Amino acid sequence: MNTNSLTVELGDRSYPIVIGAGHLAGGYDLTEHMPGDSCLVVTNETVAPLYFDKLRSCLGDTRSTHIELPDGEAFKTISTANAIIDELVARRAGRDTTVVALGGGVVGDIAGFASACYMRGVAFIQVPTTLLAQVDSSVGGKTGVNHEGGKNLIGAFHQPNIVLIDTDTLSTLPDREFRAGLAEIIKYGAIVDIEFFAWLEENMSALLDRTPDALAHAIRRSCELKAEVVAEDEKEAGKRALLNFGHTFGHAIENTMGYGDWLHGEAVAAGMVMAAKMSDIAVSEQERLTALVGAAGLPAVPPKAGSERLKEAMQLDKKVKANQLRLILLRSLGDAFVTADYSDEMLGEVLQSADS
Amino acid sequence: MNTNSLTVELGDRSYPIVIGAGHLAGGYDLTEHMPGDSCLVVTNETVAPLYFDKLRSCLGDTRSTHIELPDGEAFKTISTANAIIDELVARRAGRDTTVVALGGGVVGDIAGFASACYMRGVAFIQVPTTLLAQVDSSVGGKTGVNHEGGKNLIGAFHQPNIVLIDTDTLSTLPDREFRAGLAEIIKYGAIVDIEFFAWLEENMSALLDRTPDALAHAIRRSCELKAEVVAEDEKEAGKRALLNFGHTFGHAIENTMGYGDWLHGEAVAAGMVMAAKMSDIAVSEQERLTALVGAAGLPAVPPKAGSERLKEAMQLDKKVKANQLRLILLRSLGDAFVTADYSDEMLGEVLQSADS
Repeated sequence: MNTNSLTVELGDRSYPIVIGAGHLAGGYDLTEHMPGDSCLVVTNETVAPLYFDKLRSCLGDTRSTHIELPDGEAFKTISTANAIIDELVARRAGRDTTVVALGGGVVGDIAGFASACYMRGVAFIQVPTTLLAQVDSSVGGKTGVNHEGGKNLIGAFHQPNIVLIDTDTLSTLPDREFRAGLAEIIKYGAIVDIEFFAWLEENMSALLDRTPDALAHAIRRSCELKAEVVAEDEKEAGKRALLNFGHTFGHAIENTMGYGDWLHGEAVAAGMVMAAKMSDIAVSEQERLTALVGAAGLPAVPPKAGSERLKEAMQLDKKVKANQLRLILLRSLGDAFVTADYSDEMLGEVLQSADS
Repeated sequence: MNTNSLTVELGDRSYPIVIGAGHLAGGYDLTEHMPGDSCLVVTNETVAPLYFDKLRSCLGDTRSTHIELPDGEAFKTISTANAIIDELVARRAGRDTTVVALGGGVVGDIAGFASACYMRGVAFIQVPTTLLAQVDSSVGGKTGVNHEGGKNLIGAFHQPNIVLIDTDTLSTLPDREFRAGLAEIIKYGAIVDIEFFAWLEENMSALLDRTPDALAHAIRRSCELKAEVVAEDEKEAGKRALLNFGHTFGHAIENTMGYGDWLHGEAVAAGMVMAAKMSDIAVSEQERLTALVGAAGLPAVPPKAGSERLKEAMQLDKKVKANQLRLILLRSLGDAFVTADYSDEMLGEVLQSADS
């Protein structure tokens, strides 16, 4: 068993991220991270048949029930979060109950938001089963649901008690979703760690082959980098915003296309290339990013959604401050920053790649 | 102008409670407590005609819009909170926007919850206009909405940037609501301050006459006591639970009768007397509480909802831990504690006052 653990340092709300193979099959003990003896497992119709029985072996004598959500970003809504809360009420779950999310980012975000709101916050455990959730959404305490007007517009900061990452779950992940997860891994290299970026350039084919050692390293390094940023800036007053590299463009793509048509990671991949093209960096660095995105089988250009529609969708971004949209750009590959100081012409030019 | 200010000590989230007459008419400057230059005022159809124009004079050049909710606890639902979020989205409000609650506890709780969820939390200002909101719900950061299954089951901790209490607004408060607010004031005396309790016994008729000096003292002392408890235990891990004295019974009454039929303060008043009767204290102390509740024109016995229904509703209380309902009881008048150590017979006996 390839076990590995790191800690997200948040004072008395610090929590471990446990990464390795065989954790679910081996019945990793989650009960010591639960305040009481009851839990509600939130999963979806795709993940449940694959991993729910295994997860039960991690829950000991805990009284557990579960709820299966429909699969897909389209269901990441306030009404799905309500359905989870209805279930907690129906079960008369007390304040010492625990919500366990078993699934990808959508399951984790909705379940986390429901656990943040139920009785003003009950315990929460993340068991992410997609690459995207393992390297990004399960770590850092951002929870939420989408609004017709924009992605993740409704949410809460609510840190889990533990994140349990079983890399074995990736064996059942469809190829397209696996690649979407690689986008966020590439992001970490691009914004804060040029060495990791270079490692990814060398090891992309091993990752695409899902070689266990390569996967374990990529996941661990991604979690480490995210944990460092979150520990420094939990509520996104500063540095944490860097994690949104590519996301302002990406969210606009998702919002314009309708959630689910483009996967989040695909939209972020195209968004990162767009952000790099807005950045005053060497053309060779822009090309390295474009090449790595391409090597991961991800799109480097946005869909033909129309530059005007994309621009409008970008205005709803949470990074808009005093009506001025801020972007995450690169000083160089591996060194990102937040800025509102960019030319509208340049933005218009980059968005034109969305015109047919 | 009778001005007075105190601080809720919560580290970098500390905030002032400003108490006095004439603050709205005098255009108290709220803009320095706003991170940006836009705000959404949330109020209701009853309060808006009375105070909205005055509040505008406190907002300076801030770009403000407002939304009027229907009046009443029946509308303290997730869909009303959604309506506020819809308005923020429609206005393309950014992360630096501020939500201002102008009204009673219902308006404050819903607006606070919406501001906690929108973009995972935007700034929030409380301008409470009822006695209940001024001495209780506007202070301490508890926000939330009701669920069919129970009161405040959905919510968040979200501290305001400032609480502005204009005691002039009490002049338009209907008598029944005014008396309901007195219940929470009596509560502070009963749980932590026997001297304040004795002061209330002496000054109840001055309070019922809405004598400015008596009101100012009662509001200030209530806010002080609540601020102390909240500073010590923001998330209700311990001492803060004492503030729920009378509320486990009270919520069960409200839940059983349907919210709105009994006012919150009325239900709490009867609940406090029930809790005192469960407490191992001198009969004379039980009688002092019953007498003060009666002097305030509040009910000392529950409605005839049936003891079984009340008991069932109590099981949904947030203080249920490991399926054991905890109650706030009195060691003596002015000294409350949380306990799960009470006899079911005694509980049954006290609940019988709800049988016809």
